[in-house]
Amino acid sequence: MTQQGPVRLGIVGHGVQGGGYARAIGAGEVEGMVLGAVCDIDESKRAAAQEYGVPFHTDYRALIASGDIDAVVATVPHYLHPEVVIAALESGLHALAEKPAGVYAAQVREMNEVAASHPDLTYAIMFNQRTNPLYRRIKEIVDAGEIGAIRRSSWIITTWYRPQVYYEQSAWRATWGGEGGGVLVNQSPHQLDLWQWICGMPQSVTAKLGFGFRREIAVEDEATILADYGNGVTGSFITATHDLIGTDRFEILGDQGKIVVEGSATATVTRLDKPEQEISASVPLEQVFGVVTGGSQLYESTTETLEFESQWGGQHKEVLRNFAANILTGEPLIAPGSDGINGVKLANAAHLSAWLGREVPVDGEDEAYLRELNGRIRAEGMFPERER
Amino acid sequence: MTQQGPVRLGIVGHGVQGGGYARAIGAGEVEGMVLGAVCDIDESKRAAAQEYGVPFHTDYRALIASGDIDAVVATVPHYLHPEVVIAALESGLHALAEKPAGVYAAQVREMNEVAASHPDLTYAIMFNQRTNPLYRRIKEIVDAGEIGAIRRSSWIITTWYRPQVYYEQSAWRATWGGEGGGVLVNQSPHQLDLWQWICGMPQSVTAKLGFGFRREIAVEDEATILADYGNGVTGSFITATHDLIGTDRFEILGDQGKIVVEGSATATVTRLDKPEQEISASVPLEQVFGVVTGGSQLYESTTETLEFESQWGGQHKEVLRNFAANILTGEPLIAPGSDGINGVKLANAAHLSAWLGREVPVDGEDEAYLRELNGRIRAEGMFPERER
Repeated sequence: MTQQGPVRLGIVGHGVQGGGYARAIGAGEVEGMVLGAVCDIDESKRAAAQEYGVPFHTDYRALIASGDIDAVVATVPHYLHPEVVIAALESGLHALAEKPAGVYAAQVREMNEVAASHPDLTYAIMFNQRTNPLYRRIKEIVDAGEIGAIRRSSWIITTWYRPQVYYEQSAWRATWGGEGGGVLVNQSPHQLDLWQWICGMPQSVTAKLGFGFRREIAVEDEATILADYGNGVTGSFITATHDLIGTDRFEILGDQGKIVVEGSATATVTRLDKPEQEISASVPLEQVFGVVTGGSQLYESTTETLEFESQWGGQHKEVLRNFAANILTGEPLIAPGSDGINGVKLANAAHLSAWLGREVPVDGEDEAYLRELNGRIRAEGMFPERER
Repeated sequence: MTQQGPVRLGIVGHGVQGGGYARAIGAGEVEGMVLGAVCDIDESKRAAAQEYGVPFHTDYRALIASGDIDAVVATVPHYLHPEVVIAALESGLHALAEKPAGVYAAQVREMNEVAASHPDLTYAIMFNQRTNPLYRRIKEIVDAGEIGAIRRSSWIITTWYRPQVYYEQSAWRATWGGEGGGVLVNQSPHQLDLWQWICGMPQSVTAKLGFGFRREIAVEDEATILADYGNGVTGSFITATHDLIGTDRFEILGDQGKIVVEGSATATVTRLDKPEQEISASVPLEQVFGVVTGGSQLYESTTETLEFESQWGGQHKEVLRNFAANILTGEPLIAPGSDGINGVKLANAAHLSAWLGREVPVDGEDEAYLRELNGRIRAEGMFPERER
């Protein structure tokens, strides 16, 4: 469905993120989009709306009913993303969710179902890292089969340093009831998304999480995930907020090549001239010693180095522009909203695996997850339990 | 206990490895050691012994009883290392075991117990990679506390390419009954040992193994191990024999620094001026934004790059020399034999975890391991089951 004229965006939650979007849109930096209204439960944010000359609301339902906007972006605490997006879609507004799509898969599934019943409305998620040209190119290479079928992937992403005071900025931060998790929910949803975007979704997950490992928090400041994709294909994902000398290294092994990404800025792509198993099968007995000792060159390959300036952060405007363009001209979405559930499922399965000390399928344990999460919210005693 | 004159070594198993040792010792390349005798069940190896002018035996018991030697090196199939070493020690000979120390921990434990009851005899294991100056230096740095207590380690070591025909060279290779495992038992014991030598032993292990994943074999050609050291400390270890573009990258995160080793040849060592948690605690609220966006330098550090020519392979002679020197002068052993059980315990726990689909403690499951292993040997139907 297309419309005439710029998309009038309503910002729900004028915090760090929402305020940044308002500034960019207000300054005319997002093609096809104007600021329609601002909403925040904090009355003191009214001045910001006045500065932009747009209406201000303290209740997002009033904003949605106002007729002043065509679309919303939900930059509210993670738990509330589905609630705001669902209300917008059900009122005929387009909706852009912040990441993560939600805290628990059941609420994101409901959001996806509502969106599916409104195919005329644009539903997207702020996975701005998908605009990183390096990862876009890697996805193209993998999707085109240039390194063959993926056999293993491994990402260490610990460039998320957060000192103790970061966690003490607000009462909901790093709590089960207020935020719903730590590094898996707040910092690494982008990489969880890129990982599944490029390598697909695993069937099951085994994880070790460091709950309050190097920080005084209830939730995890470190995670190691071991993922099983079936048929022997595996992946590992390591993330943390306490590594001052952070690592960002992602490798993908395919049947016919390999990609190694360093610092999300440089990728070394090696393509073999034939599948590895064919090369393996072609080695004659008399060449084994040479192979084992590294003296034999078994294959032809090409190695390409992709270099881009690191694009971490800063492409939010491109997602906003794309969201407007999808509404206005049908331009394909960079990150369809329905994709958001995958990262949430990965984070949920990792939490549940660590809590229960066993492997957890990424599908089918929504109820168990919510039960365990609510147990932690209850024990914490700061926020209400969550309902399905 | 020291002796006069060079150590007369008996080689038990004149294959690729044992033959290499015989050549080096026969050529006078190992200080303090001479070739005493050669033993192999294959009568055709007699010519080799004659070439060196030393006695030849087809039964290692006869070799041990001969009086021609002071020490043995057991370069026989993995399962037999403990049997040969125990027989030698019980006859008053010094013993050097090839790696791995054995296939299952129970047999290695027995070997260690026999060795412990003969403290006058030298008992060592061929962990020649411990002579790599890079890893020796890293162990010194870690042991001295220069990067603080270890919080996480991660090693990807897939530079072990083995084509299909490698596995078809002999009937025992890559079988449960003949070899007892794949990449964890044959190729990566060196790294499993270095990992535990530098980072210590975990309490438990969760593993995903690829049994016949990319090769037509019964045992594993790929392994991913997630190790738990207690108190939130974790490690991961990934190895494979099917990665043509192999990776060798080892990182160790400490409370007060980090070490990243590339290609077992270059290490980047960063030392912080104070513990990371102290740095974290010292960040004031107004600096959080700067920290999160990477704009604040929080700490003083020094970064040192250690570079050595890659030493993979080739230091066997140094272990032989050190073994002789320990016998002759009491020089400390590079790799005491009793250390060999650690790598075996790691490999056993990884196998058992993959077989049973659960986390496995590295201690206390010897019986379960042997039972499961024997089940596979029985199903394979090629070799006898193993006894405790």
